[in-house]
Amino acid sequence: MSRLADQKKDFPQWYLDVIEQAQLSENSEVRGCIVFKPYGYAIWERIQQDMDRRIKELGVDNVYFPMLIPESIMAKEEAHVEGFAPECAVVTYGGGKELAEKLYIRPTSETIIYATFAKWIHSHRDLPLKINQWANIVRWEMRTRPFLRTMEFLWQEGHTAHANKEGADEMAQAALKMYVDFDRETLAIPVMAGIKPDHEKFAGALYTLSTEALAKDGKAIQAGTSHNLGSGFSEAYDVSFLDEEGKAQRPWMTSWGVSTRLIGTLIVVHGDEKGLRIPPKLAPIQVVIVPIYKSDEEKEKVLKACSDLVKSFNGIRVKLDDRSEKSPGFKFNEWEVKGVPLRIELGPKDLEKNEVTVVRRDTGEKVSMKMADCSSKSVNAILDQVQAGLYDQAKKFMEDNTRTVDSVEEMVKILEKDGGFVWAPWDGDIKSADQIQKKTKATIRLLGEGDKEGMALFAKAY
Amino acid sequence: MSRLADQKKDFPQWYLDVIEQAQLSENSEVRGCIVFKPYGYAIWERIQQDMDRRIKELGVDNVYFPMLIPESIMAKEEAHVEGFAPECAVVTYGGGKELAEKLYIRPTSETIIYATFAKWIHSHRDLPLKINQWANIVRWEMRTRPFLRTMEFLWQEGHTAHANKEGADEMAQAALKMYVDFDRETLAIPVMAGIKPDHEKFAGALYTLSTEALAKDGKAIQAGTSHNLGSGFSEAYDVSFLDEEGKAQRPWMTSWGVSTRLIGTLIVVHGDEKGLRIPPKLAPIQVVIVPIYKSDEEKEKVLKACSDLVKSFNGIRVKLDDRSEKSPGFKFNEWEVKGVPLRIELGPKDLEKNEVTVVRRDTGEKVSMKMADCSSKSVNAILDQVQAGLYDQAKKFMEDNTRTVDSVEEMVKILEKDGGFVWAPWDGDIKSADQIQKKTKATIRLLGEGDKEGMALFAKAY
Repeated sequence: MSRLADQKKDFPQWYLDVIEQAQLSENSEVRGCIVFKPYGYAIWERIQQDMDRRIKELGVDNVYFPMLIPESIMAKEEAHVEGFAPECAVVTYGGGKELAEKLYIRPTSETIIYATFAKWIHSHRDLPLKINQWANIVRWEMRTRPFLRTMEFLWQEGHTAHANKEGADEMAQAALKMYVDFDRETLAIPVMAGIKPDHEKFAGALYTLSTEALAKDGKAIQAGTSHNLGSGFSEAYDVSFLDEEGKAQRPWMTSWGVSTRLIGTLIVVHGDEKGLRIPPKLAPIQVVIVPIYKSDEEKEKVLKACSDLVKSFNGIRVKLDDRSEKSPGFKFNEWEVKGVPLRIELGPKDLEKNEVTVVRRDTGEKVSMKMADCSSKSVNAILDQVQAGLYDQAKKFMEDNTRTVDSVEEMVKILEKDGGFVWAPWDGDIKSADQIQKKTKATIRLLGEGDKEGMALFAKAY
Repeated sequence: MSRLADQKKDFPQWYLDVIEQAQLSENSEVRGCIVFKPYGYAIWERIQQDMDRRIKELGVDNVYFPMLIPESIMAKEEAHVEGFAPECAVVTYGGGKELAEKLYIRPTSETIIYATFAKWIHSHRDLPLKINQWANIVRWEMRTRPFLRTMEFLWQEGHTAHANKEGADEMAQAALKMYVDFDRETLAIPVMAGIKPDHEKFAGALYTLSTEALAKDGKAIQAGTSHNLGSGFSEAYDVSFLDEEGKAQRPWMTSWGVSTRLIGTLIVVHGDEKGLRIPPKLAPIQVVIVPIYKSDEEKEKVLKACSDLVKSFNGIRVKLDDRSEKSPGFKFNEWEVKGVPLRIELGPKDLEKNEVTVVRRDTGEKVSMKMADCSSKSVNAILDQVQAGLYDQAKKFMEDNTRTVDSVEEMVKILEKDGGFVWAPWDGDIKSADQIQKKTKATIRLLGEGDKEGMALFAKAY
């Protein structure tokens, strides 16, 4: 295993090195598409499990809609098709024949889903209607980067319909809160959350809410979005319902999603000079046990003690790395780059003292622990500390790199020197936002609210 | 809710009626593609959860490969591309431009996966390599039927590489056994399992194994397949490894899959005149509780007792149907057509006697049970009986409709009159199989082995 590029000197190369060495993904035979390798996909499965539970708690049912969208359906909502059609992959042949109507591979599924909502929604009693799907998406990106921007990616997309604006507002906020909670509790990632400026909203939306994390290179990364779509899609797809007075009304829609980009977010927020650091609540492997021995006699005793330890753990995702062809040093390095939260080392000396050595991935801290004390309970307690430790580190980093300024000049200086988030006054004019972007490459991530009214959050972004 | 078509008189219409009334799926805006509605998708989620565990127990890791396959990759294995290219959907435009190379939407992923295996496999120590993905598939079908044959469907596809034929043989058999076990234990469906004749094998395979269930209309339905692909794909994609003597060798591949067709299989095997019957181990809802009341006073007492019952259940997937706008009769009908294994009715008379009424979906049997006896344990015991009952019914049906004959004439008579499986002598000549198919529409599902050597299993099929 080669070394990683220096995170501080060449962050982009460090990012690619981590992905390669942690065996998360690799480039495929298809331009801009990656292969999710077992360890990378296992992280996505853990994200799915945790978030799927949260989605269901919001009273949302999972469904699955077709991936191919006929051009006539795609074209009905004008702003939406203008935004998305140029980045679509288009099927023109099927079954050996040229098609009478082109089929778009979904770049998102509002169009096909709301065309069906027209059949499902008739009365106020059919509302709210709340569904979600886990699906693959294709967008024709020119510059791609594993996880952060790929031509095909995996995501969940929630779609709901409500009787009025208030219902849609509440749902859009509830989805945003679900993402913020997931980011904080499971990914151990603090985020800024709020509303996007109009020129950065989703094509066809009334407004877009977003969570924004801060990468270690000082760039913002959009981690999840939630849109109040207004009643424009209802108009376009002729969805209507009879309200309690028997009057025909257009429902209000929301949509919200997160994608495999969260894996990229995880890397750029928590990664360090040794590689990935995965928070325990997410980690496919929470604890790795590495046996240390020289003689065959030692090997037998040590492996026996290790497998006893594995058996004693209950409800912990533990792996015993008993590969005989690899040295302990190689294993330490491999599991560090893969970001496993806790390593337990067990060698003849430990065995003599009835101890194990426990090493935290977040801090590198190494402590001896009596074998008898090394229980599910005590290990879970350390895992909780790692979870909290990663969050605290990321939170401190975000706080240290969030600044408030009074002028554009001041902002330009900060963005050139340190990056990070900058709250600055903004007059609401897209032209001034454009000028700032030309000067600094920074865009408006969110609008200020409350005591930040009249300000905007600027940052360079992924 | 309208009535179902008569299962005995018009099975195809009955099938569509069940799907509509059980709210499993509906036709979409895209020809040949269905929308999986919440209840239909929940069944697929249960299938996924159960089978994913079994797949991981075989030491197989989940991954995800790109959906779009460049024509040059697709074309490398000749028999495979000849078999699949004619039924592919083809992307010719992307990002607003005509593509230099066409991209096929995967009809199955051997080509793109084995092109990558060439990068992953170098030494005998890299073998066996065992991966699986859950993915969507597109095949350009002309005649479609919900779940049984759709243009887009969902599936899992396992792909493995082995050092030699024996390794691939064992894996193909292990995957087949996993499917047989899943069919029997979880779906409560007995199947015939064995090898396909050469002219029915997967395009590019050495041989194909299959599980075949028997639908209630006497037709066979292929429920899962497992292929030993030989070393042909290794040749085509230049995959090789150094064996223990340092000699370059071609690995042997297997692939195996089941799809959302299993939902169709469930309907045609277990469905009855009242609708779907879902085996308890699979059922998204195992027990539905229907409160019965007239006055508001009754309502309060009954609902209290119902929700106490819900709370007392542990580890049972239970739903309390407390909709006030629907009558108990409507609810009985709805949950019957949806195939929920057990219904618990609770009304004022039951309450007086401290009883509940328990109704089995598989038999229609109705018994009273003391409230105090209605525990997780006793309900699980009844659910086990329902599971076994459904299996026994399906097994008896399959046995009653599996016949062995000595001549083609005899087979023709049986297939015209009763349908079902027929074991008959077969000379191994594709011409005689074709003649039989012309006469009877029956195809060879599996070849006989052991005491059925020299015979073949014929049936009309989905």
